[in-house]
Amino acid sequence: MTGAGLEGVIVTDTRVGDVRGAEGFYHYRQYDAVELAAKRSLEDVWRLLFDGSLPTPAERDSFAAEIRGARVIPPAVAEVLPAIAGASADVMEAVRTAMSFVGAVEGFRPTLDLDHAERRRDAVRACAVMPTLIMAVHRLRAGQAPVDPHPDLGYGANYLWMLTGEVPDPEVARAIEQYQITTIDHGFNTSTFTARVITSSGADVAAAVVGAMGALSGPLHGGAPGRALDLLDDIGVIDNARAYLTDSVKRGEKIMGFGHRIYRTDDPRAVFLRGVAERVGARQVEFAKVVERTVVDVLAELKPGRNLYANVEFYAGVVMDHCGLPRDLITPTFASSRVIGWCANILEQAADNRIIRPQARYVGPPAPEPVPED
Amino acid sequence: MTGAGLEGVIVTDTRVGDVRGAEGFYHYRQYDAVELAAKRSLEDVWRLLFDGSLPTPAERDSFAAEIRGARVIPPAVAEVLPAIAGASADVMEAVRTAMSFVGAVEGFRPTLDLDHAERRRDAVRACAVMPTLIMAVHRLRAGQAPVDPHPDLGYGANYLWMLTGEVPDPEVARAIEQYQITTIDHGFNTSTFTARVITSSGADVAAAVVGAMGALSGPLHGGAPGRALDLLDDIGVIDNARAYLTDSVKRGEKIMGFGHRIYRTDDPRAVFLRGVAERVGARQVEFAKVVERTVVDVLAELKPGRNLYANVEFYAGVVMDHCGLPRDLITPTFASSRVIGWCANILEQAADNRIIRPQARYVGPPAPEPVPED
Repeated sequence: MTGAGLEGVIVTDTRVGDVRGAEGFYHYRQYDAVELAAKRSLEDVWRLLFDGSLPTPAERDSFAAEIRGARVIPPAVAEVLPAIAGASADVMEAVRTAMSFVGAVEGFRPTLDLDHAERRRDAVRACAVMPTLIMAVHRLRAGQAPVDPHPDLGYGANYLWMLTGEVPDPEVARAIEQYQITTIDHGFNTSTFTARVITSSGADVAAAVVGAMGALSGPLHGGAPGRALDLLDDIGVIDNARAYLTDSVKRGEKIMGFGHRIYRTDDPRAVFLRGVAERVGARQVEFAKVVERTVVDVLAELKPGRNLYANVEFYAGVVMDHCGLPRDLITPTFASSRVIGWCANILEQAADNRIIRPQARYVGPPAPEPVPED
Repeated sequence: MTGAGLEGVIVTDTRVGDVRGAEGFYHYRQYDAVELAAKRSLEDVWRLLFDGSLPTPAERDSFAAEIRGARVIPPAVAEVLPAIAGASADVMEAVRTAMSFVGAVEGFRPTLDLDHAERRRDAVRACAVMPTLIMAVHRLRAGQAPVDPHPDLGYGANYLWMLTGEVPDPEVARAIEQYQITTIDHGFNTSTFTARVITSSGADVAAAVVGAMGALSGPLHGGAPGRALDLLDDIGVIDNARAYLTDSVKRGEKIMGFGHRIYRTDDPRAVFLRGVAERVGARQVEFAKVVERTVVDVLAELKPGRNLYANVEFYAGVVMDHCGLPRDLITPTFASSRVIGWCANILEQAADNRIIRPQARYVGPPAPEPVPED
């Protein structure tokens, strides 16, 4: 192990939100995130994260208008998007490339050189265009023309509209939107931390978002939800679960969708999304619940004291599958709303910045060794 | 200030190299980096960083062959590069976008799922193609066709060849190569740390490199060398230096190219590059030396005890200017070789990984506050 991964190290103060691992609780600017997901629209929560308060009706209208214009892909990006989508190995990489290009085309300038209103404008642009890019890339890869954002649909409904070109069932749209709300922010996870580190150099919003997307694409972070569904597929039938999981744990494999650096009890996102999956009657929910219980049992037996619980990724896959999202959109969908949390953190970092520059401990052979002549 | 920027916090153990701030010394795997720059080619140092030792003649040949093939821009990227180069606000953003696309086109897979040889192959590809992308983007923006890499030229000479299409003066080529060697690695600077954080999620090499490029583009990190040249321009003539700098410091402005988180004495890179600039007779070197002394004097007078010295960026600009690099290539040229340091760190992180996930301290109003009904 090259290091302890900064576990427990406090990097900075924040007002964006908090995760209380021992309590199984997290919040966005004072409000229980799960309660926000139950009661509010994604746009309301987005506005809360950016501006510090839930909107009044007038503020809601003005924020909606702001988002509406910012959803559209810039023409220069739309022009090369088919080539980028077609040649990329996966959706996430194509969207990473496209987002980098959006920042360049829109002339995002270093956060160090901008005032808050200018940085906020770039952040709104990045967050609003992300879902459009994701669905455009997905459709282009399937040989379909992109579907423009729908001016009259809310966040989740528009997201699915851009996937299919059809107005989705409101209950399905609400399920995906609730998933998206619960994943907007979650402490100093690796991608959010990446966004803050990049911002600390004074770089532009797109630089930070693109870096965070890279971090999120890692299988130990946002790359997991697809793998949790793969796990269900691999187990196949309920009767197979115990034997499969016991073998897997005995071979020392990591069970995807279980365990979290911070939570020492149930992950509140998993609990909430299990409820969402049950409410909408997701295809695999009963199977997933059996697998969840079996994993917990098997781990308690074979790895006592580890206290691993299902994390957000486990039921996220089940919910997304129900909403008709193909597996290659699972990680991008995580990114579709997490970008709002990244940007809330980017704005906070830029408002009161110090460059983040830690140190490493050199443990190689002693220096200097004279350089041999060639 | 939202935090102390992890100053002095040790993230991990490393064998890549070390910076001893109090001594004004840094090294790459045991060897004084400045001595390496004086005595060895960039390719030798690159191989040292990747594989742990300076190459034998046979190893050198085989490494050169490996690099030669990896320099070429993939056709799918070359096809959209004119559009990306033309529509981007600056070279760095276009190269960031192109590098993201290279990783996607080449099918770079998550480092978590690869063995060392596979990760190393992707790292060689990213490092080798970076200079080619930089120069292709630069030329396309100037309305010129890109110049293919020259199979028989060393690193610095090929770099300038791709800029102009002419074989450069060997002394000029050596000067730029020496700059590039001295900037390959330098502890846990913000971009290198970014690369390691992204890699810690198990993401692919391009994800980490693209994130690091974003961090480097910030004015508080790699965005500075151009600004140090701007400072010389703004001062204009020697007689103006003291008054200009005194005013600037009194207004509380940061003097670009001075000061460093780690060094408490001369930055050895600045000392070495000042010598390089003198050796090649760089146009602005005498003026720069006067400005350097004046800054140190003025700071000693107005900010006693701060002990700020010229950092690498100050003379880097002077050297690059002499080598015929236009100002918009200064930060990209920093990236052209720093990518090797990023990748040495990516390989080390991936070989023995733990996810980097620190924490923040919530300091906002107490939670939970009930979510008001809409």
